Amino acid sequence: MTNLQQLDAYFTAHRERHLEELNELLRIPSISALSEHKEDMATAANWLAQALKDVQMENVAILPTAGHPVVYGEWLHAEGKPTVLFYGHYDVQPVDPVNLWDSAPFEPTIRDNKLYARGASDDKGQVFMHIKTIEALFALHKELPINIKFLIEGEEEIGSPSLTAFIEDNKEKLNSDLIVISDTGLYGPGKPAICYGLRGLTGVEINVRGAKGDLHSGLYGGGVQNAIHALTEVLASFRDEHGTIQVEGFYDDVLPLADEERAAYAALNFDENDIKEEVGVNELFGEQGYSYLEQTWARPTLEINGVFGGFAGEGIKTVLPAEAGAKISCRLVPNQDPEKIVALLRTHIEKHKPVGVDITITEFDKGQPYLTPFDHPAIQLASKSYEHVYQVPTAFIRGGGSIPIVASFDQILQVPVVLMGFGLSSENFHAPNEHFHLENFDKGLRVIGDYYTALNQLTPEELK
Amino acid sequence: MTNLQQLDAYFTAHRERHLEELNELLRIPSISALSEHKEDMATAANWLAQALKDVQMENVAILPTAGHPVVYGEWLHAEGKPTVLFYGHYDVQPVDPVNLWDSAPFEPTIRDNKLYARGASDDKGQVFMHIKTIEALFALHKELPINIKFLIEGEEEIGSPSLTAFIEDNKEKLNSDLIVISDTGLYGPGKPAICYGLRGLTGVEINVRGAKGDLHSGLYGGGVQNAIHALTEVLASFRDEHGTIQVEGFYDDVLPLADEERAAYAALNFDENDIKEEVGVNELFGEQGYSYLEQTWARPTLEINGVFGGFAGEGIKTVLPAEAGAKISCRLVPNQDPEKIVALLRTHIEKHKPVGVDITITEFDKGQPYLTPFDHPAIQLASKSYEHVYQVPTAFIRGGGSIPIVASFDQILQVPVVLMGFGLSSENFHAPNEHFHLENFDKGLRVIGDYYTALNQLTPEELK
Repeated sequence: MTNLQQLDAYFTAHRERHLEELNELLRIPSISALSEHKEDMATAANWLAQALKDVQMENVAILPTAGHPVVYGEWLHAEGKPTVLFYGHYDVQPVDPVNLWDSAPFEPTIRDNKLYARGASDDKGQVFMHIKTIEALFALHKELPINIKFLIEGEEEIGSPSLTAFIEDNKEKLNSDLIVISDTGLYGPGKPAICYGLRGLTGVEINVRGAKGDLHSGLYGGGVQNAIHALTEVLASFRDEHGTIQVEGFYDDVLPLADEERAAYAALNFDENDIKEEVGVNELFGEQGYSYLEQTWARPTLEINGVFGGFAGEGIKTVLPAEAGAKISCRLVPNQDPEKIVALLRTHIEKHKPVGVDITITEFDKGQPYLTPFDHPAIQLASKSYEHVYQVPTAFIRGGGSIPIVASFDQILQVPVVLMGFGLSSENFHAPNEHFHLENFDKGLRVIGDYYTALNQLTPEELK
Repeated sequence: MTNLQQLDAYFTAHRERHLEELNELLRIPSISALSEHKEDMATAANWLAQALKDVQMENVAILPTAGHPVVYGEWLHAEGKPTVLFYGHYDVQPVDPVNLWDSAPFEPTIRDNKLYARGASDDKGQVFMHIKTIEALFALHKELPINIKFLIEGEEEIGSPSLTAFIEDNKEKLNSDLIVISDTGLYGPGKPAICYGLRGLTGVEINVRGAKGDLHSGLYGGGVQNAIHALTEVLASFRDEHGTIQVEGFYDDVLPLADEERAAYAALNFDENDIKEEVGVNELFGEQGYSYLEQTWARPTLEINGVFGGFAGEGIKTVLPAEAGAKISCRLVPNQDPEKIVALLRTHIEKHKPVGVDITITEFDKGQPYLTPFDHPAIQLASKSYEHVYQVPTAFIRGGGSIPIVASFDQILQVPVVLMGFGLSSENFHAPNEHFHLENFDKGLRVIGDYYTALNQLTPEELK
């Protein structure tokens, strides 16, 4: 029997027990955003600590942070072999509106080979798969093919406010050769994918102030600047009619897409009609000369996220508004720097400031973009493990969103990050009726087992 | 004694009683906007009906409308003489925030020769002056020099929703040679003015719809149109950086300012620094080639009154918004037509519609602009009466605001409207501590008496 066949036999034999155990974890309503679930957060952390101990992890501990604690455990006896730092999270999103769930969010239910529960896919189910893979490898080989450290946090769904500091304070403890994260998805049903790039993020709020108070548009209209008009001029100056950003220098540091990346995306045979139908529009929109996937994965954006000012109630109020504001955010791509982009935005806004108003700018949190070379051996080995199980080629994709903690790992620990996800975009994470396709639960266990075994063939030096 | 001297003696002799009577009226909290004051509205209407009877008005009646009733009374025995239709209102604005009043809003108080009470200036005080002028003229001459009809409505502060229909239904009853309204102001302290033009009004709400729901700006940003960006492009297309409106045909019907009007405005020696200080801006803003007074009195505007879309809470939410909207209104000048302007706005919006969105337009109520030739004898006589009392030249001004009912009178009854106001813009109508300068109460009584007497010298034909 090959190692993969052994894993297959083990997971098949223990499937029922594994699902029962996962259900225990899913029953804990560990909602990080709601303070009334603080005790549930501790219960979930304790459950995971025990689960790590049960699979022979050592130095298992629930470590405090400024917020919810992280669960840690390690096994470091594979001398000369790579050390994996596995990252996942035990907190889940709130469940409102709970009346839209077909079964109770914290009462796991299987329908049509899909496991319905809050956290089933994001991310308890995927964290659990790594723990059970360790169980299987110990059962089969009495030892692990690699060294492993588990870092399972409790604040991912609220933006990981404490984790960057935790990583910085524990660089030595978290030292590793690669980081494996299972919190993303397949490209589609039956189509494995490795996400090797994520967009970064920066944002500002723009506040425009004209007169000292709202004015009567009859008495003053035509002679005093209107804060909304002024704001509108600034906002309209950011992009041209195709969405190409007009902020001087905005694209200067953008890494052009490699020919092989463009070819790889084209090979995905993405159908733009699917997106039109999904979002309900008749026409797409975006930078000329780029496909939809290129636009959303590898090109930066500037989006107005909100706008406000003047009278927004029913009917009309003929006010000449003194104040108006907008929130804008940019998705950034390698090798753009959020600090530099904010400086360019400031210069642009100042340059386009209309007469008769003052403008103030407030900066929001920034997240670096992230890109790992997809020819890295850690990535290539992972793609092979997917292929061994799914029996189709693995796609190399980027994600248009931002997972700031990935960039933090990358920057602080300076090791490659392998985003090895098993979710599907249809699985309603963050929405009612979250579920996890058990087909990918089953296959994922085998992919992870195959991958951890394969990493044994590499030295830490080969992963540099 | 001249007629004016006789009036002066009469008003001096009866001042104390007149003020006591006015206080009775001011004590009635006739707030048309608040249904709990419905009985107070009836009390005020009854009070005025009795006051009209007391000064020998005939056919006095409280006439129903779709809303609050109007008070009517007439005296039509000056054969061959002009008939004045006097219009005013007995309703007042709400008084919140009541804690900002230095004395109770419905307990009239004189401080520093100013009468403090809700409605003192707008408009009970000014209505009362016309009734007491009639009293004086009867006392002095046993008859009136002119025919007069009183029409005092109860819905001015809520936009006169019932009055246009009332006028249309009672054209015969309201038939007259000129309309006199005292519900505006002097140009400044000691500076009488006649407002001979008002701007009209039209407005629309613009609603932009992109995707069928808000989208994740990471997953879709760069490939799907953003409703706020689309809206912003439309809004920014309306005006250039000086506020000149870019809607094709918008200015086509605008009557150019006559040289004598420009000269008259320039002669007012208006100081733009006063406005800057009043509204709290460092620089004014507006169409090039026009003074501030010309911009706000005689040029049309397009103002965004409100804008909304996406996330407006604290912090950032990286949403790609599916919906956004704005309310815009235009102040129109003679001879612009609100219907035509709305059609031009629709064409402009359609022409500037960005890709990837649908736009719907909702129209609001429209009001015609109003302009009476200021060389009309009814206007010129009124200016002379002001000069007889104030001993300075009367300014001919326009108002930037809109009093839609003035245009309705003008259009339905087809007679000149004389806006003979005695308020001051500093008198806090619609705000806490509304007051009326008793100097202008006193002078106004004499101006009105002088004017009604002077009109006796004209035939109805001369007023055509």
